[in-house]
Amino acid sequence: MKALVYHGPGKKSWEEKPNPTLLQATDAIVRIYKTTICGTDLHILKGDVPEVTDGRILGHEGIGTIEEVGSAVTTFKKGDRVLISCISSCGKCDYCRKGMYSHCDQGGWILGHLIDGTQAEYVRIPFADTSLYPIPEQADDDAIVMLSDILPTGFECGVLNGQVKPGDTVVIVGAGPIGLAVLLTAQFYAPATIIMIDVDDNRLLAAKAFGATHTINSQEKDAVKEVFSLTENRGADVAVEAVGIPATFELCAAIIAPGGRIANVGVHGKSVELHLETLWSRNITITTRLVDTVTTPMLMKTILSHKLDGTKLITHHFALSDILKAYDTFEHAAREKALKVILTSK
Amino acid sequence: MKALVYHGPGKKSWEEKPNPTLLQATDAIVRIYKTTICGTDLHILKGDVPEVTDGRILGHEGIGTIEEVGSAVTTFKKGDRVLISCISSCGKCDYCRKGMYSHCDQGGWILGHLIDGTQAEYVRIPFADTSLYPIPEQADDDAIVMLSDILPTGFECGVLNGQVKPGDTVVIVGAGPIGLAVLLTAQFYAPATIIMIDVDDNRLLAAKAFGATHTINSQEKDAVKEVFSLTENRGADVAVEAVGIPATFELCAAIIAPGGRIANVGVHGKSVELHLETLWSRNITITTRLVDTVTTPMLMKTILSHKLDGTKLITHHFALSDILKAYDTFEHAAREKALKVILTSK
Amino acid sequence: MKALVYHGPGKKSWEEKPNPTLLQATDAIVRIYKTTICGTDLHILKGDVPEVTDGRILGHEGIGTIEEVGSAVTTFKKGDRVLISCISSCGKCDYCRKGMYSHCDQGGWILGHLIDGTQAEYVRIPFADTSLYPIPEQADDDAIVMLSDILPTGFECGVLNGQVKPGDTVVIVGAGPIGLAVLLTAQFYAPATIIMIDVDDNRLLAAKAFGATHTINSQEKDAVKEVFSLTENRGADVAVEAVGIPATFELCAAIIAPGGRIANVGVHGKSVELHLETLWSRNITITTRLVDTVTTPMLMKTILSHKLDGTKLITHHFALSDILKAYDTFEHAAREKALKVILTSK
Amino acid sequence: MKALVYHGPGKKSWEEKPNPTLLQATDAIVRIYKTTICGTDLHILKGDVPEVTDGRILGHEGIGTIEEVGSAVTTFKKGDRVLISCISSCGKCDYCRKGMYSHCDQGGWILGHLIDGTQAEYVRIPFADTSLYPIPEQADDDAIVMLSDILPTGFECGVLNGQVKPGDTVVIVGAGPIGLAVLLTAQFYAPATIIMIDVDDNRLLAAKAFGATHTINSQEKDAVKEVFSLTENRGADVAVEAVGIPATFELCAAIIAPGGRIANVGVHGKSVELHLETLWSRNITITTRLVDTVTTPMLMKTILSHKLDGTKLITHHFALSDILKAYDTFEHAAREKALKVILTSK
Repeated sequence: MKALVYHGPGKKSWEEKPNPTLLQATDAIVRIYKTTICGTDLHILKGDVPEVTDGRILGHEGIGTIEEVGSAVTTFKKGDRVLISCISSCGKCDYCRKGMYSHCDQGGWILGHLIDGTQAEYVRIPFADTSLYPIPEQADDDAIVMLSDILPTGFECGVLNGQVKPGDTVVIVGAGPIGLAVLLTAQFYAPATIIMIDVDDNRLLAAKAFGATHTINSQEKDAVKEVFSLTENRGADVAVEAVGIPATFELCAAIIAPGGRIANVGVHGKSVELHLETLWSRNITITTRLVDTVTTPMLMKTILSHKLDGTKLITHHFALSDILKAYDTFEHAAREKALKVILTSK
Repeated sequence: MKALVYHGPGKKSWEEKPNPTLLQATDAIVRIYKTTICGTDLHILKGDVPEVTDGRILGHEGIGTIEEVGSAVTTFKKGDRVLISCISSCGKCDYCRKGMYSHCDQGGWILGHLIDGTQAEYVRIPFADTSLYPIPEQADDDAIVMLSDILPTGFECGVLNGQVKPGDTVVIVGAGPIGLAVLLTAQFYAPATIIMIDVDDNRLLAAKAFGATHTINSQEKDAVKEVFSLTENRGADVAVEAVGIPATFELCAAIIAPGGRIANVGVHGKSVELHLETLWSRNITITTRLVDTVTTPMLMKTILSHKLDGTKLITHHFALSDILKAYDTFEHAAREKALKVILTSK
Repeated sequence: MKALVYHGPGKKSWEEKPNPTLLQATDAIVRIYKTTICGTDLHILKGDVPEVTDGRILGHEGIGTIEEVGSAVTTFKKGDRVLISCISSCGKCDYCRKGMYSHCDQGGWILGHLIDGTQAEYVRIPFADTSLYPIPEQADDDAIVMLSDILPTGFECGVLNGQVKPGDTVVIVGAGPIGLAVLLTAQFYAPATIIMIDVDDNRLLAAKAFGATHTINSQEKDAVKEVFSLTENRGADVAVEAVGIPATFELCAAIIAPGGRIANVGVHGKSVELHLETLWSRNITITTRLVDTVTTPMLMKTILSHKLDGTKLITHHFALSDILKAYDTFEHAAREKALKVILTSK
Repeated sequence: MKALVYHGPGKKSWEEKPNPTLLQATDAIVRIYKTTICGTDLHILKGDVPEVTDGRILGHEGIGTIEEVGSAVTTFKKGDRVLISCISSCGKCDYCRKGMYSHCDQGGWILGHLIDGTQAEYVRIPFADTSLYPIPEQADDDAIVMLSDILPTGFECGVLNGQVKPGDTVVIVGAGPIGLAVLLTAQFYAPATIIMIDVDDNRLLAAKAFGATHTINSQEKDAVKEVFSLTENRGADVAVEAVGIPATFELCAAIIAPGGRIANVGVHGKSVELHLETLWSRNITITTRLVDTVTTPMLMKTILSHKLDGTKLITHHFALSDILKAYDTFEHAAREKALKVILTSK
């Protein structure tokens, strides 16, 4: 089969690899129908995720059709259409039983990371019964691909952890795909005000179209001052960090209202300065989270009932065999006005 | 001044009464600008609320302008435009400190019940600081009147107590004004399916227009069977009782899914049969609640930000002096296709 | 092997039965070391649980040693000492993923009910990975047996559903083993007052010894009046029904304070009268629940750290082969002053 | 009257001051019966709290007797015995209505800070109805003094924010009075393991006596290594920072388990380094809080029912007129083995 293979920092190729085979009784082999590229894949390609080794097939998102299941798989059979979760969950360990699949003793984020991933014609999925989800007939396939990672990440790490409530003022820092996923799913809870902060006017335009009530280009304006001026000097009830650098986290801490919640979604490579000398008395909550995908069934229902339109995040379509072109587009997101790209297998 | 006065079961008149005066230092006198009629007022007029005595001015909803405040009132001053809450809250007792204003030691629902109410040119409001809310300039006055009672009642007793969540299946039994208020505010939480059950096709049409995904006329169809057929035989995650008779409560109990919540909103005059012989093992929750109006500030924000359109509930307008005509319309709601009526003072 | 077999209402025998064998890859065969008898077993023997058929081995509690595991079992191996949960959980279905194991699509309460149970020398346990728990070396075996059913039932159905909080007034109606399990685990949350109501003075004495601050013999005194007199006329914050008849449920409803929670634990055979005509406005919550055993790992930690002494519930010990004698004792609990009995295999 | 007056960094005296008088209708004048000294008072005396100005009477804790009330005070009258909360709450503003009294628009922590405090023979208490609590007859007065600040602070900022649950592993960093208050109130929730970390062996001995299951002297041992070794390498479910310096906060962050909660109680003067490069994916929660004293009524019940023994925190007693000696003792806490001191007026 063909697959997108990582060969060390800066190097990848679309090349022939052996088809995956069942290794455990709980595995399934899935023929990939659609997949996508994640910002994390770019991090890997920069060499920022050293546990990814030469020869690894990338990708942790996608939908497809069951090709074969191990003897212990009871929920799925050959021919079933399935959504692949970016998080593998054994369903048995303490973390899985608590709904914290991200920290599964044997699973978690392993696809396209510690084992071969989904940017390929076939993929082996461990713990298939508890890591795949059936796709209902009426579903829009492109929208369903957004349930592999970006929508549960935005929703769980940003919206649920931020405890967004009706009438709240929510500030999202970072209008990339993940910040926009926060924006889409925050609207489940009817916040009164959603302010999107970014440095790219195109993305801020997208944010407006997706439901932001206000946008701030933080290169042009003092974002802290703007947020306070938009909130009668109160600050944000919820601030979502969706970039992953110290400046944006510290911006969240600077604009949070007493009693507010800072939900970190970004993947950070450095420590940040936390101003406890002012924050200690402000009754705030800061959360971090690797997505658990525990809300995937809930989000599936919101997609099927059109409360959530996952396709809004999709700007480009490619054939799976054109994945190198798709990477080029995604790597130049600003130039290409790209959010998520969909790769479809023949 | 003129006021709508109760004179025993079946008897009311629009008559001259002395203007109210300050009795406590925490009182305010409000000149009524707009008020409305509640289903509860009709109950009183039937004689169902015996603690309401001859001579009582009815009404517990409305907006107006502060005419005079007692010496202990610090939040409001003459001329301020205010929303009157149907629940008076002293702000000091244990119940008030816990946010359960409905059971305030000295307040609760007293307006138009134990003391004179708002269907008059002036009204005395006890505990003004904690029972009135300022009306922002940009507000739509008619929408704000809906915050006195019906919107917080639907939201608190139905939606919050029912714990509506994204993707849920919500069934509302009773498409009167209060059931429709539940319907409007349930949508804050992005349920996938909202089924409205009633016997009046006009009200079911309104429900569809207000966001119900399905409607059932329970005189024409077997509502239990319909709900199970619409939910792949699972039943409702949330069932809201918004009528107040045994049959509708028992319908809610018959359609609830394991793990589901039955939120009672209706005012009941009789006991109901609770089938614990089947329900004991179904992990359900049943709640009752007299509205606390603790969410009024939150709902105000959703009104001002247009996440909630309270005016949808309003079908008729009258001059305050035409209140007898308004009562006639409201008493014949089916004939008149009436939901809420607004009475406006000159 | 020998087993306790049900032969229709009123009939049981300790007789020879074939050893169980693995039927599914996820099964385990457990050699029983200790088991016990549940009030539910007595219900079955009265004929109250018609889905239990002639020839069924009873029992859904116990500990033992793994004898054999199916090919898909990964957590346990021959020789492991395990706690058997009364609830079988597949770990894969929607209910299991939500922590509502009681309603598992293929499991739930099936042991000694729909499949053969634990009152035998060996038992087949379905979904072994997610229905058994390892027993740490230092554990007191008798205490661990109480984790199969009675302690999680008291804790989940009574204490968690009742939302017991520090300083609360908790009333428990029914001082049988399950009511006492509520009493023991309620103390995790430091309620100020725990009132136990029963008609048996011996059990009330046990309740006092277990931590009840007050007891009421409801045959000697008016329980409603007593509760209000003990609570400065406020009523109970939490009322736990642990009997299963209309009178005791209705007693809970009569003593509940505004804002209070009624947690039903009892197994009911008849409907009850729910006085919504008074309760509709009292902001109460009523819950039902079949135990999910989702808190078993948490309770295990409280047992191991001596925050909870499960052995307090145990009054009698028998050899497993003397189970008919044990049944006789348990059936005459008042006469024998029996709470839980432990049956130990040689 | 006599009072303890601050005269700039390092300077205080017990001197004659005019008696306080009512300034607002909602004020009460309380004759102090017992008061105490807080670590915060020492901070003020070091000059760390610049908004405290020369001439200010210190102290924000105590009990006493109502001497006089303003015209708007309805809950208390001359002669009532009252607990003074360290947080003044107007009961009317948005923050107060949400239970976040610490951020009351006009109140919050003002006593002995922005207005004269309780280390005096008399004190003026603003918003008396919502900032004082009646003391029941049977109460132990010394224990009640601990409800002014230290017990609600430990409970709200440490235990509630840390979401302590039965079976949890709780680590408390700092065994001063506030850390010990966390320790006492954490036991409301039956954690399995409570590890206290400090550098003073006397305080660690006290911690053991108060219920810590393990203690670590972090000057003698590597605290991080010890915590992981005590928790089978999992880390803490809850880590409470009760010192207020970067090193102790960073220790909490180093020992927290995935899914854990870090509750900051300490008052910080400097920023800390937050290692988001490792924490971003660990699903943790960090909270800060200035005590709201919203749990004072709940804690009062636990004191009265002997679930909580506040007197354990008290090591020394002085006459109020010996307050300078008491300060000396409290300032040399290690030498004097002092926790809280009680000052009693004649």
